[in-house]
Amino acid sequence: MDQTHRRKGRAARRTEPPARVVNYRRLRHPFAPQKVLTDDAVARMHEMALKVLEDLGLRVLLPEARRLYAAGGAIVDEDTEMVRVGRDIVMAAVATAPKSIRLRAVNPDRELSYEDGAMIFSPAGGCPNATDRIRGRRSGDLATFEETLKLHQSFDVIHKLGPSAEPQDVPANLRHYAMMRGQLTLSDKPVFVYARGRGQVEDSFEIIRLANGLSEADFTDGSWCTTVINTNSPRQIDKPMAEGIIDFARAGQMSIITPFCLAGAMAPVTVEGALVLQHAECLAGITLAQLAKPGAPVSYGGFSSNVDMKSGAPAFGTPTHIRMAISTGQLARHVGLPWRSAAGSAANVADMQAAGENHMGLWANLLANATLTIHSAGWLEGGLTFGYEKFINDIEALQTLAELCTPLASPQEELAWDAIADVQPGGHFFATGHTMERFDSAFYAPLVADLSNFGTWEAAGARTATERATAIWQRLLAGFCAPEGSAERGARIADFIARRSTEGGAAPRG
Amino acid sequence: MDQTHRRKGRAARRTEPPARVVNYRRLRHPFAPQKVLTDDAVARMHEMALKVLEDLGLRVLLPEARRLYAAGGAIVDEDTEMVRVGRDIVMAAVATAPKSIRLRAVNPDRELSYEDGAMIFSPAGGCPNATDRIRGRRSGDLATFEETLKLHQSFDVIHKLGPSAEPQDVPANLRHYAMMRGQLTLSDKPVFVYARGRGQVEDSFEIIRLANGLSEADFTDGSWCTTVINTNSPRQIDKPMAEGIIDFARAGQMSIITPFCLAGAMAPVTVEGALVLQHAECLAGITLAQLAKPGAPVSYGGFSSNVDMKSGAPAFGTPTHIRMAISTGQLARHVGLPWRSAAGSAANVADMQAAGENHMGLWANLLANATLTIHSAGWLEGGLTFGYEKFINDIEALQTLAELCTPLASPQEELAWDAIADVQPGGHFFATGHTMERFDSAFYAPLVADLSNFGTWEAAGARTATERATAIWQRLLAGFCAPEGSAERGARIADFIARRSTEGGAAPRG
Repeated sequence: MDQTHRRKGRAARRTEPPARVVNYRRLRHPFAPQKVLTDDAVARMHEMALKVLEDLGLRVLLPEARRLYAAGGAIVDEDTEMVRVGRDIVMAAVATAPKSIRLRAVNPDRELSYEDGAMIFSPAGGCPNATDRIRGRRSGDLATFEETLKLHQSFDVIHKLGPSAEPQDVPANLRHYAMMRGQLTLSDKPVFVYARGRGQVEDSFEIIRLANGLSEADFTDGSWCTTVINTNSPRQIDKPMAEGIIDFARAGQMSIITPFCLAGAMAPVTVEGALVLQHAECLAGITLAQLAKPGAPVSYGGFSSNVDMKSGAPAFGTPTHIRMAISTGQLARHVGLPWRSAAGSAANVADMQAAGENHMGLWANLLANATLTIHSAGWLEGGLTFGYEKFINDIEALQTLAELCTPLASPQEELAWDAIADVQPGGHFFATGHTMERFDSAFYAPLVADLSNFGTWEAAGARTATERATAIWQRLLAGFCAPEGSAERGARIADFIARRSTEGGAAPRG
Repeated sequence: MDQTHRRKGRAARRTEPPARVVNYRRLRHPFAPQKVLTDDAVARMHEMALKVLEDLGLRVLLPEARRLYAAGGAIVDEDTEMVRVGRDIVMAAVATAPKSIRLRAVNPDRELSYEDGAMIFSPAGGCPNATDRIRGRRSGDLATFEETLKLHQSFDVIHKLGPSAEPQDVPANLRHYAMMRGQLTLSDKPVFVYARGRGQVEDSFEIIRLANGLSEADFTDGSWCTTVINTNSPRQIDKPMAEGIIDFARAGQMSIITPFCLAGAMAPVTVEGALVLQHAECLAGITLAQLAKPGAPVSYGGFSSNVDMKSGAPAFGTPTHIRMAISTGQLARHVGLPWRSAAGSAANVADMQAAGENHMGLWANLLANATLTIHSAGWLEGGLTFGYEKFINDIEALQTLAELCTPLASPQEELAWDAIADVQPGGHFFATGHTMERFDSAFYAPLVADLSNFGTWEAAGARTATERATAIWQRLLAGFCAPEGSAERGARIADFIARRSTEGGAAPRG
């Protein structure tokens, strides 16, 4: 649901109050970035990360990537596949990595500036399963994937797409065609491409060019898609990930380097130790991108939290997660790069835990001034499942935060002297002119929150926020209209996809 | 449940990792106070509030209070009961109001410094009803009131008591005896007294003195109890509230002046206008306290939010609520006083809305650096109901925030060089010495969050966070032990309460 309610036409009565106008499309952080580490600690962690890369190095499984590192001056041991990268190489890469990246979209009004101060949200990503109150928990399939895209498209506060459900009923060698078609016909927002090998990535780039009628030069004028690169923490980059970094860099598309450093599991158990490792791996990925193509768009990234030390399960929205998000922001700003973070939840159902964990993560990223917060809506089970009702409730949280991005201008009339003077002691302001002029536009209108009293709520069925959310996603899906130009984009990519499918598609990189 | 897990005894094996030690008793805000208003806007709002008091004035229903204002130099019209207070009188009061107040408790280890930078939480207050999953929604009674006290006492992150349920089965003229007895025998934390007229207040003060064996001088050495004073916005102070301000001030006990300025209802519809009114009323209350006794402990307070403009129902956790909390902090700091704020929820049940709204309010108060956040746990239905399961889930949120108050010291060993060097690429840190030394103490242990995977969770009954919370409060109530000295305190107040009850108690002030 596009929350932009336009002002009513000129024919409306002059006394009619202005309708609420909101714009959640390009948000800037409302609060200054906070700190949980001293500047001195940040500097020491940065130094240690450079030392990790220089003295210990990391294992890079793709020969092509090792060649790039070697050509850039790194010390490569082909037997062990270990690459040691000097700090001069790393810092030269940081220097050429762009500080502001234009994220392009089918609809120019959906474009984003990926830079410090921007506040960008993307939905739950990487979920193999989906769940809702009507159909229950199930493996992701194409129909579900397309439904999630419709939900993403329905809210302006979701700024770019992410793979909320895996279409597992589509064979792996053809799946990327279905995912690109879905994104380009059901949405007009910046798209996501999985880095699952060169074949799929090049197909996906070609589909974007065809859909939008782009020349090669057009395609590299800003980034038309993004991918997420997860290192195999600790200190390893696997083949599809390394290839993804190289291919995206060469094509001028943004990869988001994101070690997934769970403290106590794939990373040291302390916040500081996990972040040293995260920072080192992140810098290694950024360096590879810049060695592939200097100036290539690439994002610093972090998604660190702790594990439950009893079960080894990842935890989200915890004190450790909050601290890691804020301190990742400190490290990203230390090297001067925009960066991605994440919210999320380990809850198995859309309940108070799910809401609480996600709120903790969202506020952490607000205090961290994260450029991009991934998994900001719909993530359940630590990412194993996309929850329809959770998505709707999370949108309420995102919209609430988005509202804070409009500064209070506080002109004198907002201080309401006349209204205060007019209303007698013990009276009320419902009927004052000051209120009447503003009553339709003063406050955020809740999406799923029910503010009615207990009796009214009970008489209406005593439905929880989770239950009410069902009706909302059902209504959105039932009333969905594809964005302008969808049919044309679908037509422009149909032949290519048909031909490539006949040719056998492209298998994921092993 | 006291979350302080002590270190294990000396007899423990030397290789045993240290247990987790936490202390949630005296928290300091971890982040700098944020702003949503420019300093200039704050100054203009303060000026306008002074002008409201000076030019428009407020209606004060209690003759004794009007006499105090008049004696202090205010212009009083006995016919209209209007009091106009000059800015010199107001600013003199602000100057004598203490900036740091010692909140005393039965247990000295529960004492609090009520001052800028402190982060104090109190539970849901003022609820006529209570609800839980076993017994359903019901009117508050004494048994419920006493249960809520046991729950408050069970968590260190609840720093002072509040009236979470109204014991409506106790006659109004005797109810304050039951409420004081409950607080002083079931808890050792700072207590709350309702300002429902001089008779009840003086009885309550005497019960505190008797329970603790305090002389008059002891009783006024710090504040042994607190009350909340709600003005009748707009611009009115009723009799019991005015009397409460006077009685608490004269007895050296802290009253918390809290206009409840719902924007669009009892206050102007704009954030700025509502806060001008709130600030004016708050300063009027503080002035009355200082006129009654210069230097008396009194707190600035605010609990402003918006109403749903369709139903007129109060809303919480909204963008307006967040902004008002943060800007109230700006106004309180403008006059240099510690202050109270509030979280809360309008939800009718312990669901995602309830969790979301409370998290929004809690983070708002964190960014606002609220000295005291009232209604921080258990508030449902905009305060009409205390929810047992909501209380437990809210405690998880409070404990998560409390964890952030311990600074990261970041000594070199926390950066984990040896661990990073020891673990091979693609390996894991579960078994490293660095992890083993810390695994039992590294992370916050969740109270109600369930981090198990879907299969395990489903096999265990697929219970939501709300359902799991039931077992927690049941266990806490079943295993509750009264704090040290409870029986003695109960014995010391028994005769007084019996005598006063025979005499007819004290009816609430009309």
